[in-house]
Amino acid sequence: MGELVLTTYDWVPEPPRGFVRDLRVRWALEEAGLPYRVESTPFKDRGPEHYAHQPFAQVPWLTDGDLSIFESGAILLHLAEKSEKLMPRDPKGRSETIEWVFAALNSTEMASVPWSIFHFMGQTDGQMFGFFDDFVRNLRVKRMETVLAKRDWLAGSFSVADILMVDVLRLIDRFKGLDEAPKCKAYVERGKARPSFKKAHADQMAHFAAADRLAHDA
Amino acid sequence: MGELVLTTYDWVPEPPRGFVRDLRVRWALEEAGLPYRVESTPFKDRGPEHYAHQPFAQVPWLTDGDLSIFESGAILLHLAEKSEKLMPRDPKGRSETIEWVFAALNSTEMASVPWSIFHFMGQTDGQMFGFFDDFVRNLRVKRMETVLAKRDWLAGSFSVADILMVDVLRLIDRFKGLDEAPKCKAYVERGKARPSFKKAHADQMAHFAAADRLAHDA
Repeated sequence: MGELVLTTYDWVPEPPRGFVRDLRVRWALEEAGLPYRVESTPFKDRGPEHYAHQPFAQVPWLTDGDLSIFESGAILLHLAEKSEKLMPRDPKGRSETIEWVFAALNSTEMASVPWSIFHFMGQTDGQMFGFFDDFVRNLRVKRMETVLAKRDWLAGSFSVADILMVDVLRLIDRFKGLDEAPKCKAYVERGKARPSFKKAHADQMAHFAAADRLAHDA
Repeated sequence: MGELVLTTYDWVPEPPRGFVRDLRVRWALEEAGLPYRVESTPFKDRGPEHYAHQPFAQVPWLTDGDLSIFESGAILLHLAEKSEKLMPRDPKGRSETIEWVFAALNSTEMASVPWSIFHFMGQTDGQMFGFFDDFVRNLRVKRMETVLAKRDWLAGSFSVADILMVDVLRLIDRFKGLDEAPKCKAYVERGKARPSFKKAHADQMAHFAAADRLAHDA
């Protein structure tokens, strides 16, 4: 097994701190107890080296020996193969983990990211915001409320699917989208209470705060 | 191995025909040469049986013996384990396939679906459309143009990642989003020229057309 190296930005502005997607990877690595190292890539000048690892010039990416992997979903499935703390080993648990990984990213986050962009841009009136607000609240959060009424974690036991779904719902919660969804809210709190989430979150905040201090000293 | 049964709607209105996500599953099954059967679930009345298989009351889902799987991405990764026509077997090819599956669904489609909703709703002026138009054209299509300048298929040879990325780009093309992206356009045409795509597309169109005839005869 190669050394695991997680790369994220050297710095980001305040608003995305605590929500940059390297958090998902840190959280999974902490849950699995896998040793890793964090490296930085410039936020402001994204060059060919960055594009070679991440074609959309985003973060994170993970290197594992010769492999370089981008997309938080792909990285988490890669790590899930290394530890059963991240994915059950029976065929049903494995299949449920993978389907909920996609449900988090391709059904729930596909609704919540555009919705959050309207919020970030202060454009929360008008017909199109109304469309996305209905999409998030009625077609996603309300359905997850039913799902989470019956279980603590999506695939039987805690898995990478929960890391992703909690993280997606956390952004919805940031803009008050869970106020009528007590089961989703409790699920997010359950995720955030895990020591590995707390360490991942604190480490991301410290990483970007360190960059502020460097800039100040320069 | 259990019998493979793909479930889609019994009927959909004209606009989504040819783009319903069961097409991705049909295409993969045809590429792999796996035998399968297609069943229908009501489009208009979505009951508990539907929710039990697909918690967001969408389609498709696939059953494989005792397993029932939703999310086109999860279904395609499940099928990819059955046939190397859908995913290379070496660790690098496998890893690249999975990362490009997520790049199609969580990076590209996350931009293109909201953008296409603005188009479907005829709301293609204003600041928010401008944001998503830039997101699709400059942060996604332009980047894919660079990627596709160097390769015919995303993971070395044709894989489920191409089924998903071609399908995502096909929707962008529907609303003229590839007009300045000849490499993406050629990639979509390469995908659509495959006999398995043609059969999957024709079968989906025939499936919904049959429902029209039934309704007419009733």
